[in-house]
Amino acid sequence: MPLSNLTLVNECDRFPYPESDPTAYLSRVNTYYQLRVADHDYALGYMLPSVAEVFRGIPSWHLDDDEGTLTLTAGSTAAERSKAVGNTLLAMRETGHFKVLNKWRNELYAVYGKNKELLFNIERSASPLLGVVTYGVHLTAYTRSQDTGEIKIWTPRRARTKQTYGGMLDNAVAGGIASGESPFESLVRECSEEASLAEDLVRSKARAAGTVTYYYIRDERAGGETNLMQPECQYIYDLELPEDVTPKPGDDEVEEFYLWSVDEVKQAMENGEFKPNCALVVLDFLVRHGFLHSENEENFVEIVSRLHRRLEFPTL
Amino acid sequence: MPLSNLTLVNECDRFPYPESDPTAYLSRVNTYYQLRVADHDYALGYMLPSVAEVFRGIPSWHLDDDEGTLTLTAGSTAAERSKAVGNTLLAMRETGHFKVLNKWRNELYAVYGKNKELLFNIERSASPLLGVVTYGVHLTAYTRSQDTGEIKIWTPRRARTKQTYGGMLDNAVAGGIASGESPFESLVRECSEEASLAEDLVRSKARAAGTVTYYYIRDERAGGETNLMQPECQYIYDLELPEDVTPKPGDDEVEEFYLWSVDEVKQAMENGEFKPNCALVVLDFLVRHGFLHSENEENFVEIVSRLHRRLEFPTL
Repeated sequence: MPLSNLTLVNECDRFPYPESDPTAYLSRVNTYYQLRVADHDYALGYMLPSVAEVFRGIPSWHLDDDEGTLTLTAGSTAAERSKAVGNTLLAMRETGHFKVLNKWRNELYAVYGKNKELLFNIERSASPLLGVVTYGVHLTAYTRSQDTGEIKIWTPRRARTKQTYGGMLDNAVAGGIASGESPFESLVRECSEEASLAEDLVRSKARAAGTVTYYYIRDERAGGETNLMQPECQYIYDLELPEDVTPKPGDDEVEEFYLWSVDEVKQAMENGEFKPNCALVVLDFLVRHGFLHSENEENFVEIVSRLHRRLEFPTL
Repeated sequence: MPLSNLTLVNECDRFPYPESDPTAYLSRVNTYYQLRVADHDYALGYMLPSVAEVFRGIPSWHLDDDEGTLTLTAGSTAAERSKAVGNTLLAMRETGHFKVLNKWRNELYAVYGKNKELLFNIERSASPLLGVVTYGVHLTAYTRSQDTGEIKIWTPRRARTKQTYGGMLDNAVAGGIASGESPFESLVRECSEEASLAEDLVRSKARAAGTVTYYYIRDERAGGETNLMQPECQYIYDLELPEDVTPKPGDDEVEEFYLWSVDEVKQAMENGEFKPNCALVVLDFLVRHGFLHSENEENFVEIVSRLHRRLEFPTL
């Protein structure tokens, strides 16, 4: 049974919408704890009660069951808050509280406030525990035939040994944005690391093309605890590669790059071979380049909106 | 004081969002009446109480003050419902109840249900009274210099005598989609009518590029009653024109076409010269073509989401 494009969207953008399904939305947000920092009266993410519970009684944190909030009380600067968050998470890692912390990355993600100010940094592997918005870059590399104009899309398969989404298809380049790094500089770095693409080529030819935003809920394929909430913002880039340039795996994360026609890519999408968020980036590419439109996709209007979900937390 | 891009978005996508501003959202939806049709227990639009009141006691309609609903009770097929709606609106037009009905267009817009079925057709000028989703096509026509690659955008100025948004800037081609017409056929028709663009050129070179969706609230510039709600879905197309093709006004709705650099267009945007929803289409074009990105627009993430609002009513 081929997966429809709307099914692919539903498998990544999983959190209910308040205006169209208020019951499902409210039953979740009334159950979850809001993550906050002191003196900022708004949510930065939703946390499972089972996760929030672990913060009860820990210095620097205040769990309020009546309000349904977990508040970081320590620190009044980003540096102070980051240190408090780091200390808590390191301790939790050592006591083995959370499986996701076993994949400790030593990479810091940024959490922003309503004025786009940095509130604190958080170890990457811990971000889904707190449910905060994370940022990444995704690049679609493609070729355009000089003769026919046909577009083909470079599509990597993730190493089958990779612990998350092993063997699934990916976008040409994708990675998380470290705190303090700009999207474009992150892209240049990832293009080199993941696809061995020359820096000057990327700087001169990669083109920004918007964002893809969605509200993911993790399942077993992501590794670690399931049902953690992961609102994400991916900065999208296109890169038309000369036909004589071939992306090559720069590390052991990619098994192989395929150069596929749009129909081959669509087939793999239907087969559910793409990592969930990468499928959304493919859909956005197909929409922007006119391959997917109102005459061949019955859920076109819904899909285009869902690829650009407005997240309910502050974003950069 | 130049208008920011976020201000331009805010001036078109005006309805509050439930997840980020629940108080403002609820105060509106708890005041307004939901438009419904019998045996379909969901809203098709929001109506001002002052508008809904006029339907009280009219055959074919049931106003329920406790539920806050106005339900079309007549008819069980699209044809029957459309006839009942048409009769009511014609009578209201004759009695001069609503100023917007003085601009009667004799064009029918389609209103869809949750299964994408046609529920009824409604006279175009009446659609903001009922607050239903309307559909249109917007095309950006542009040139790309063979020498430098520079993109310039064909930008028409609306006739100053036009009753709505007279003298403001527009997209190259824009129009409403009549019930039963496909977006692409609507585009081909409008390109001929509004810009004298040859049908074969449009059919071969216009490229679908997604949708722009927003929730407009009408002000005095739209003519007629103010504060009527107008959730809209615009199907977006790009058309790269050869440098020797010049769009020409095909009717008296356009005063002149300008061929402007991206900077000239941005300047006119800052000056507030664009019709509100056309400014959003320009922003979407600038995003998709890499002119607006995370490094030169501080509200980039918010803007891209807002250009693709998920409407809370059924859409096609």
